[in-house]
Parts: sequence; structure tokens; C-alpha cells
Amino acid sequence: MEQEIILVPGFSWFGKNIGIKDETLDFGGILSDVPCQAAGVFTKNTMPGAPIIVGKEHIQNGQLQGIIVNSKNANVATALQGERDSKRICQLIGTACDIAPELILPSSTGVIGHYLPMEKIEEGCRTVRSDFGKTSTHVENFARSIMTTDTHPKWIGTKVREVALFAVAKGSGMIEPNMATMLSYFVTDAAIPADVLQAMLTRVVNKSFNRLSVDTDTSTSDTVVILANGLGGEVDLEAFEKAFEQIAIALTKMLAKDGEGVTKLIELVVSGAQTQEQALLTAKSVINSPLVKTAIYGADPNWGRFVMAIGKVFQYTVDIRKLKILFGTGTNRLSLDVEKIDQNTVPLDEIAELLKQEEIHIEIELGSGSHSEKVWGCDLTEGYVEENAYYTT
Amino acid sequence: MEQEIILVPGFSWFGKNIGIKDETLDFGGILSDVPCQAAGVFTKNTMPGAPIIVGKEHIQNGQLQGIIVNSKNANVATALQGERDSKRICQLIGTACDIAPELILPSSTGVIGHYLPMEKIEEGCRTVRSDFGKTSTHVENFARSIMTTDTHPKWIGTKVREVALFAVAKGSGMIEPNMATMLSYFVTDAAIPADVLQAMLTRVVNKSFNRLSVDTDTSTSDTVVILANGLGGEVDLEAFEKAFEQIAIALTKMLAKDGEGVTKLIELVVSGAQTQEQALLTAKSVINSPLVKTAIYGADPNWGRFVMAIGKVFQYTVDIRKLKILFGTGTNRLSLDVEKIDQNTVPLDEIAELLKQEEIHIEIELGSGSHSEKVWGCDLTEGYVEENAYYTT
Repeated sequence: MEQEIILVPGFSWFGKNIGIKDETLDFGGILSDVPCQAAGVFTKNTMPGAPIIVGKEHIQNGQLQGIIVNSKNANVATALQGERDSKRICQLIGTACDIAPELILPSSTGVIGHYLPMEKIEEGCRTVRSDFGKTSTHVENFARSIMTTDTHPKWIGTKVREVALFAVAKGSGMIEPNMATMLSYFVTDAAIPADVLQAMLTRVVNKSFNRLSVDTDTSTSDTVVILANGLGGEVDLEAFEKAFEQIAIALTKMLAKDGEGVTKLIELVVSGAQTQEQALLTAKSVINSPLVKTAIYGADPNWGRFVMAIGKVFQYTVDIRKLKILFGTGTNRLSLDVEKIDQNTVPLDEIAELLKQEEIHIEIELGSGSHSEKVWGCDLTEGYVEENAYYTT
Repeated sequence: MEQEIILVPGFSWFGKNIGIKDETLDFGGILSDVPCQAAGVFTKNTMPGAPIIVGKEHIQNGQLQGIIVNSKNANVATALQGERDSKRICQLIGTACDIAPELILPSSTGVIGHYLPMEKIEEGCRTVRSDFGKTSTHVENFARSIMTTDTHPKWIGTKVREVALFAVAKGSGMIEPNMATMLSYFVTDAAIPADVLQAMLTRVVNKSFNRLSVDTDTSTSDTVVILANGLGGEVDLEAFEKAFEQIAIALTKMLAKDGEGVTKLIELVVSGAQTQEQALLTAKSVINSPLVKTAIYGADPNWGRFVMAIGKVFQYTVDIRKLKILFGTGTNRLSLDVEKIDQNTVPLDEIAELLKQEEIHIEIELGSGSHSEKVWGCDLTEGYVEENAYYTT
């Protein structure tokens, strides 16, 4: 797994500024030399943006050849005008690149409730064919063009034997399960049929992005797409899926770390649950608790807040006599046996010390079964509030 | 309805400092001259504090004569030792005041995971009989003794024909539905049987405290109790319940306004829902959305975030063509017809102006049915983060 850019054969990229809001890169695309097998997972928000509606239509037969993205404007809550605009962009790109508009997946990210500035976008589409290129700079520009409040571009890639898998993502606020915001695009030169790819993507998303929470808000634009152009030939599917999952988890952590105002990544395991549902509900309850998140931000060893958050899952009873909270990893690991706690012996200073790290590892052992779940999240800081209190003004 | 203290016949009060944490009032009680019919509603958190466990036991036959409360320590996650401590307090108060310990309801609020400082509390219980008194100062001291991060004591009362109803409450963080935190004690000299009182309390709590959200965290100590000593005789039950509900809603708003770091109270109505559940889920989704809460804090007219939060209720579909968002009340009311929005005509400045008020009124009309719900909440500020990041340190 590498954070270097990996150039996947047959894919071109671009990212440029067309002046949607300011001088930063705001328009980008990915184009394959040949049609690709494609799979996608989209937001469950019932008020999805226009590009989601159009994108789902375009991907329905499992084929795509390109992706076009603008940042600074989400094209959400823009009614039929929004859908017309998204379709028009696909048409313009299709014409410029000489492919069918239905082979383009459109994405938009940014503020909600404003029409796209179509004049600027039409102008930007006109020259797009010559914008596409296959160098690392082209890839990096694409990764930068899709950023909103991200503080840095995000990509990661790997080789699976003969083929390559490379992914670019953005996303920092409005991130919660179904799915963890954002736009995330995977490309590979492996030959994998669309239906196999779709099943694999769903499994991978469920173990990675759907286990991430930044702020419990579910974006209207969430999109994860993978394009497989087949130029590298067939691949061992098991090995590929393993690499795919690793890449997705690595991106998930990058997104958590770069969440709005975030200073710390939290990795939380809930184990010993009666059911998978209990493990996940408990993990989500803890990782989304503002009081847990602020305590971790302040490195306050206020472990009682974990107990409170565990108790918020009303559907299940937890036997407090079996409950353990473990802080840290490896030899520094501290185990707190909730029932036997003698307040004089709780190693508060050591817990505070572990909470000062940039990556916080916590495990909650419920002691009542064999199911477990791992989720990722982040702390809640004044920075998050500041960033979001004056977003449009 | 008055914010003046109303002295309800037959009830004594006290509040004093026994040095649990600092010099502020931290120990208080309510005592009736005669046994009362009593009803209570408690937290649904599955990790309730020891006082909740003991209190539920004591109230089970519908009789109580007194309430004893300490702040600065919640006696939660303190295992059997915690229950023994809560029972011991009831015993000491019972002995001092010459009533059965089972007629006392104990409450504790404050930090989780520490044993109560029983030496200090035993000392405090010894002189308690002479601490009780029936003046306004006694009532005010009680209201102050149960405060944690509250910035001011909270009480409200009213007369229902011949009888009086008076309530004291505390609570500012860890507040979310089931129920909206806090400790809230109602006393009345009306004669109402415990079973009637319990049914009435449940209905009232459901329309008031259970409609309040500060931060989605559910306290382990939530308690609402009403004591009816009967000294004033029977009362028109319908009139009484109406007054009860008004008082509870007024307290609910006080709690929202005094939420940790809060600068604004939000009153949100969701109307035109297909079902009562849809109305409530939608209202909760919006009022709990960090992105809505921060936008309101910044008076940012970022109305798209309401659309996002409405769309987070995955169980129901909303027809965006019928969706309206209304800001403000009375003649200043602004109606945003989401489908017909022309971005050039959205009165952003007027919305921003309305969001600068201390009380924000918003209505979301779903346009697909006749069910509605009203909920209360507050903005999310740097103050909340600061207050909670270093709570125990």
C-alpha cells in the first residue's frame, strides 16, 4: 500500500480552475481509454443531489468510461434544473471526448441549494480533451480539484500482482454511516465483471467507509465508484478484494484524520457483543457521543462518559460486571474493569497520556458474546464549530 | 405561570454546602409534612446511576415523603458500593427526619465513576432536620444545590384554582430524548392518587422533556418526580394537567436555553408528516444535526443543511416539491418553497437576520399528511466544546 501516486494504465486525469467560487482548483475528471466495468455506492439520504440521481441512471448497466466532478457547489436541492445541469455536463464532456454521455458519472460537492454556474462550466468543458493527461501532476490536480474543506488531497494505491488499484477521495464534514460522506473514486486495470465488482464494492464499503463517523450528518452527495478498464487482464479476486479493503480502510482513516477541526483519529473496537448489531450500535453510540469526542479532544480521562454512551443503546442490556474498557495498544495497554474500579487505583494520568496521542485506540469488551465491530471517528473541537458556523457567509 | 417562587403548603426545602468538590452548594432536599402520592420517570440509559436503581425501588408503591440530592458526583458506575451509599443516605435522612427511608428518593448528579464522599455526606445528614425550612430562601438554596454546569437556578410555578404547582430543575449537558436529562422535581398540594399522577406525568414528560435535545447524549441520572401531598384537597384534573404541561414546557425551554455553551434556543415544528413517527424522527434529525446547530450559531442562512437533515430519515420519502421551510413567526415569517427556489430570490439576508435572534422559530412543512411535532434544542458553539473537553481535569 503506497501513498505515492500509482499510474494505472489507460486512465487519464485532469484538475483545473474554472472560477466557480475562487482561484482554487474546482473542476476535474477521470477518463479511461476504453469503456470500464463499473460499480457504485451512493448516499442513502432521501434528498440526494442531482448528480446522484443522474449518476445512478448512468451506472445502472455496469458501464462507465469517465467521471466528471466539480467542487464548491453540490448541485443539491436544485430540483429539475439541477438534473438538467448534471446531464448537460455529461453531454458536453461526452462530445468533447467523443464518448456517449451515459458513460460519464457526474459528481458535485460543496454548498447546497445553489444552481451550478453553467456558463463557467460550459466554458470549462470545451477544452477538456486537452486537459486530460496521464502524469502524476494530472492525478494530483484531480485530487485537489475535488477538495472542499479538506486540508490536503487524499490518494492511495497498491499493486495486486500484475494489476494496479488506485483511489482518490475527498470528504471532511457531513460524514456518517450510510455512507461516510465524500467522493471516493477507485480505478484499476483489472478485468472484473460489473456484477462481481458491485458485490465486492458493497462488502468493502461496509467494512470501511460505512464504519466512519465524523459528525453524524449524512451528506446528500456521498459517492464511491470503481472503474475497472480491464487492460491488465484478469486478477485473483480474493487477493484483489483484500487489497481493495485495505485501501478503503486506509482512505477511511485519512478522511477521519482530516475531518473538520479534527486533531485526533479514534479507532474503536467493540467486542464480546451478543450480536453484530449490538457491537455496531454500541460502537456508533460511543464514537458519535459529543461528550466522548470532547473528552478525547481535551485528553480528559473521563472514562465514565464511555459508560454513559454504552448505556445509550436501549435495545440491549449490558452486564456492568463484565464490562471492560481498554485504552491504548500493545504493552502500553490499560484495562479498566468497570465493576471493580476502585477510584483510587484508576490510572487517570496514564489514560490522559494515551489520550494525548494523535491516534487513539480504544476497545470496549462487553463480555457477553463473540461479536465485534471496528469503527473510526474523530474528536470534536472548537475548530469544527468555527468551520461550520459561517460556512456560506 | 410565574418565575417567582411559589411556596406550596406542607413542603420544606434546604440547600447547603458540604464540601463535595468546592465551596458551592452541593447538597439539598425536599420534605413534605405528610406522605405524598408520587410519580416518577427515569432515564432509559441501561447504565443508570445507583440513585436511579434505589429511587425506582422506593417509588414503586406510589408513595414518597422526601427527596435528597447531591451535586458534583453522579454516583454512576459505582457498582454495589454506589447502591449501598444511596440507601445509606436515605437511612440517615429518614432517621434525622423521623420517616421511613423508603419514603426518600435519592438523586445524584455530577461526574461519573467516583464513589460518593460518604464521610462528608454523613456529616451533612446529621443536622439536616434543622436545615429544612419553608421560606423562599430555602427553596432557592435547594435549586442552587442541584446545579452542575447550569449558569442559573431554574424554577417555575403556577396556581391551579385552589392548589399550587411548583417545579425546580437542573440540567445543561448530556441531554437527549429519553429523557431530556436532568433532575426535575414538581411539588403540589393537590390530592391526586399515585396511579393517576403517574399516567399524567408520563404524558406531560412526553410532550416536554422528551422533546428536548441539547447534545444527543443521554444521561445516566435523568429523573423527573412529582410529589402531591394532598393538603390542598382535590383539583380539576384536566386543568391541573394543562398547567402541569405548561410548566414542564417552560422548564424544557429554560433547560435548552441554559444548555452548555448555548447562545440560542431553537423551537422547531415539523408539520404535514405522514405519521407521528415521521414528524418526530424528522424533527429530531434536524434539531440534532451538528451542521444545522452550527449554522444557527453563526446565523448562517445555509438552509440547504435543513434539506440534508430532513433527508437523513431513511425510513420515509419526502416529496421535495411539497417541502417548505418557514423561518420566524408572525408577520416576519419567511417561507422557503424548496422546489421553486430561485437562488436569486432567496431572502438570505432576512433569514440571517432571523437567525440572529435569541429564540429561533422554524417550521418544516413536509406537505404529505396531517401529523406534526414540536421539539426544542439549541445551537452548538465553541463554548460547548470548551466546557466538555476538560470537565474532570
